Amino acid sequence: MTRERIYLFDTTLRDGQQTPGIDFSVEDKIAITTLLDDFGMDYVEGGYPGANPTDTEFFKRKRTKKASFVAFGMTKRAGVSASNDPGLAALLEANTDAICLVAKSWDYHVAVALGCSNEENLDNIRASVAAVVGAGREAMVDCEHFFDGYKANRAYALACAQTAFEAGARWIVLCDTNGGTQPHEVREIVSAVIAAGVPGASLGIHAHNDTGQAIANSLAAVEAGVRQIQGTLNGIGERCGNANLVTLIPTLALKEIYSSRFETAIDSDRLQELTKLSHAFDELLNRSPDMQAPYVGASAFATKAGIHASALLKDPRTYEHIAPESVGNLRKVMVSDQGGKANFINALKRRGIVVGKDDPKLDKLIAIVKEREATGYAYEGADASFALLASRILGTVPDFFHVESFRVMVERRFDANGHLKTVSEAVVRVVVDGETMMSVAEGHGPVNALDLALRKDLGKYQSEIEDLELADYKVRILNGGTEAITRVLIESTDGTGARWWTVGVSDNIIDASFQALMDSIIFKLLKNRDHVGLIAAE
Amino acid sequence: MTRERIYLFDTTLRDGQQTPGIDFSVEDKIAITTLLDDFGMDYVEGGYPGANPTDTEFFKRKRTKKASFVAFGMTKRAGVSASNDPGLAALLEANTDAICLVAKSWDYHVAVALGCSNEENLDNIRASVAAVVGAGREAMVDCEHFFDGYKANRAYALACAQTAFEAGARWIVLCDTNGGTQPHEVREIVSAVIAAGVPGASLGIHAHNDTGQAIANSLAAVEAGVRQIQGTLNGIGERCGNANLVTLIPTLALKEIYSSRFETAIDSDRLQELTKLSHAFDELLNRSPDMQAPYVGASAFATKAGIHASALLKDPRTYEHIAPESVGNLRKVMVSDQGGKANFINALKRRGIVVGKDDPKLDKLIAIVKEREATGYAYEGADASFALLASRILGTVPDFFHVESFRVMVERRFDANGHLKTVSEAVVRVVVDGETMMSVAEGHGPVNALDLALRKDLGKYQSEIEDLELADYKVRILNGGTEAITRVLIESTDGTGARWWTVGVSDNIIDASFQALMDSIIFKLLKNRDHVGLIAAE
Repeated sequence: MTRERIYLFDTTLRDGQQTPGIDFSVEDKIAITTLLDDFGMDYVEGGYPGANPTDTEFFKRKRTKKASFVAFGMTKRAGVSASNDPGLAALLEANTDAICLVAKSWDYHVAVALGCSNEENLDNIRASVAAVVGAGREAMVDCEHFFDGYKANRAYALACAQTAFEAGARWIVLCDTNGGTQPHEVREIVSAVIAAGVPGASLGIHAHNDTGQAIANSLAAVEAGVRQIQGTLNGIGERCGNANLVTLIPTLALKEIYSSRFETAIDSDRLQELTKLSHAFDELLNRSPDMQAPYVGASAFATKAGIHASALLKDPRTYEHIAPESVGNLRKVMVSDQGGKANFINALKRRGIVVGKDDPKLDKLIAIVKEREATGYAYEGADASFALLASRILGTVPDFFHVESFRVMVERRFDANGHLKTVSEAVVRVVVDGETMMSVAEGHGPVNALDLALRKDLGKYQSEIEDLELADYKVRILNGGTEAITRVLIESTDGTGARWWTVGVSDNIIDASFQALMDSIIFKLLKNRDHVGLIAAE
Repeated sequence: MTRERIYLFDTTLRDGQQTPGIDFSVEDKIAITTLLDDFGMDYVEGGYPGANPTDTEFFKRKRTKKASFVAFGMTKRAGVSASNDPGLAALLEANTDAICLVAKSWDYHVAVALGCSNEENLDNIRASVAAVVGAGREAMVDCEHFFDGYKANRAYALACAQTAFEAGARWIVLCDTNGGTQPHEVREIVSAVIAAGVPGASLGIHAHNDTGQAIANSLAAVEAGVRQIQGTLNGIGERCGNANLVTLIPTLALKEIYSSRFETAIDSDRLQELTKLSHAFDELLNRSPDMQAPYVGASAFATKAGIHASALLKDPRTYEHIAPESVGNLRKVMVSDQGGKANFINALKRRGIVVGKDDPKLDKLIAIVKEREATGYAYEGADASFALLASRILGTVPDFFHVESFRVMVERRFDANGHLKTVSEAVVRVVVDGETMMSVAEGHGPVNALDLALRKDLGKYQSEIEDLELADYKVRILNGGTEAITRVLIESTDGTGARWWTVGVSDNIIDASFQALMDSIIFKLLKNRDHVGLIAAE
């Protein structure tokens, strides 16, 4: 069966640049273009040459190998010819395969923003498209405010699309610029455009997520006949963002109602790179990936629920809408307050701890975890603390060392030169093999001081923890007031590149930190002995 | 014209609890229930009594005033009568108005997960609903996997829904448990259920966001006849989350195609509290709100400099799909430094501080705020600290008292009875009118001790701060490691019911807390003198 081709148009570097808080450098744009080009997007829109120094620099060269490289800009102004319009000239100078011209299609904006007549605007579209085609480039026209414009003046919006098509534009893109249009309106209006003579094979959709409908609007447009989708990586874009291509691509490829009728340039091998693409882009933006993102989020195939987890283990396919591997993601079954016995057995198994489901120690472990989670512990975020607790209850953990006492002091006072100074100091008494050692350290704040003092002298174990490093430290206050319960999560790492999380909970932040620090050190010592996970099986 | 009523069913506390990384305490659940109840949800599902200690404790009392309070649980097992099923008994013991029973409606899961026959499952539904109705409670049935079940065995899925309806369930909720169903499938299958004799007025929709279609699926179901929507605050929930009620509510209220046909319990006054509701919930979770969230995100009505900004200033309505005020959000135009200055003057004016736009002190204030925000201060969330800073720079703040030094100590050791004990103690030296006073206090943790010591003796001001209370304390680590920068936000309140927020930032959590505590006390003293905001005008 022949399937119709859907073209993917990426505007991460243009509309995505309108995202509050996101500013791309030229180097960013080059790196992102490579990601997009390698992945297999049909079109990569790089920005707006002439609008700012970054984009002008970026467009000095063609930046794609396979994808069509696209520059964005405005149609010529009224009152000048296409050849005398400086904006259009800058666009034609840019080294691209295609040019996307934004054109007003809502008569109100023609009057207010452009200050010209409706007929002049049509002339601008006609002449600008002709100039682009005349220069041997592929022309496309973004009909700005198309859906709102259609509702205000149907005939004029249609005339804008028709004019662009007749002038030779390869694509006429219907833009929901303000983002408020609903899917059934999209369906209805796209059908009207096709009925007015612009074929679906020449139509694109540009949707925004202001009502959480960018995905639905894009797919409604495809169902109504549109064959190009504009969107961005991870749905960045002006205001609430653009249609998220990372969500749309797998839906088109994996949902039978679409995959039976349509195909994109992304084959199933590429699709397995989707999670990597999404995370690589977040890395470039220096932000944490959205754990709940469809298809690619760390939680997208995670299950906490006890009732689901046991069935999930019997047959994953019946609790997953797609196979996580098909988009390069992973299945996760988590330990938590919510979890049933099957969850626990599975979580232990992944750590190499085998325990029978009728072992009374397992019931004890589950009871302790539930009780602790009720007081604020969060073991699903603290793998190493969970493994330690399980090892202690199901087996044994050696008494490597013992902290007899500690004292942490923070003092703020004037120093000898009359400057206000805050000093943090910690003292710990550690017993190793019957021998007591005292260590003292200063730090940036009390927790840092305690950490340094704790790891300063562990006697015969000291050489083993030299490569231990704290990578992250998180604090969460679990209820209000300064008397609140505090949860501390610590991420540790060592020379092998391994990473583990530990947790501590107390009404005293120092105590909570101490618990998490201790778990981290003991986990490291067990790890050095390949001991984690083997204990229960002994 | 009469509009049909859509019922809002909130499952933040039940399905939302399945969100990886989110664990509610009993106190969290009580606070969130109050938010939901005050806002006007029709149903608040509180959790699963009997499944874990938190939920069992939470259901000991009825927690809502207006909303129907709902407990979630499973239908009875096969082989026992409804009156002998311990799960059902726990549900009926919970203090609720309604009970939501989850029932399998995919024959595959009946066999694999329940291990009983299809007919037994129908019996379980029938008997469980009858038991709930017989106990005088409203019964509803969540048909798990309804859409996938319908595709696998249409007749059986329909039989499950029909059985629940005939047994007297007020609502039969069609669940897209795996989240992969597309809107037009929802539309088609809902229509089939109605055609099979279960009226739309008895049907609900429970959608998940695994393909980014939770909003579209919920609205497609409503268009097809369903009259109850299940969803969560900010779209939390298992895997990729549930339908986001914070997005659905304004769409139903403000988009003419829905508002002309439907109404919810949320009137336009309540709707203006939507942004506050969404942000309050994120505060409770101690996470930053999603800036790009539809309707309520900080960027939802933000425009970056460029072609849109100038037109937006001419007539905002033509670049906004709704008025930001209608959901309690704000327009933001990030145009220039000039725009920045106008913002500041406005922010000061709201606090009663009048300053000329050419006053050089204003430039100084802007520079200091920008510099501090670059190091981690967040004045947006700390009104009182901002007002204090502005008062200091634009006018004067009296030197009420002076903290010469402080010392905080946390000690963990064995007490006289051999029990491990952690003690926190703080000492402060305060100078009031040339007289030095030392105070010492013990507390739950170092910050609490410091707070108590600071407020123990302020000499002649002591009587003025007797009604000062700390209402909330939040900590955020701004970058990784135990050497990280810490931001502390403190919410204070007093006998007048006023609430104010102060901020402190340091690499030392005690120092950061000290700054925020000091700002809170000084703000209180100024407030007692009606002094805040008047200083600059003097």
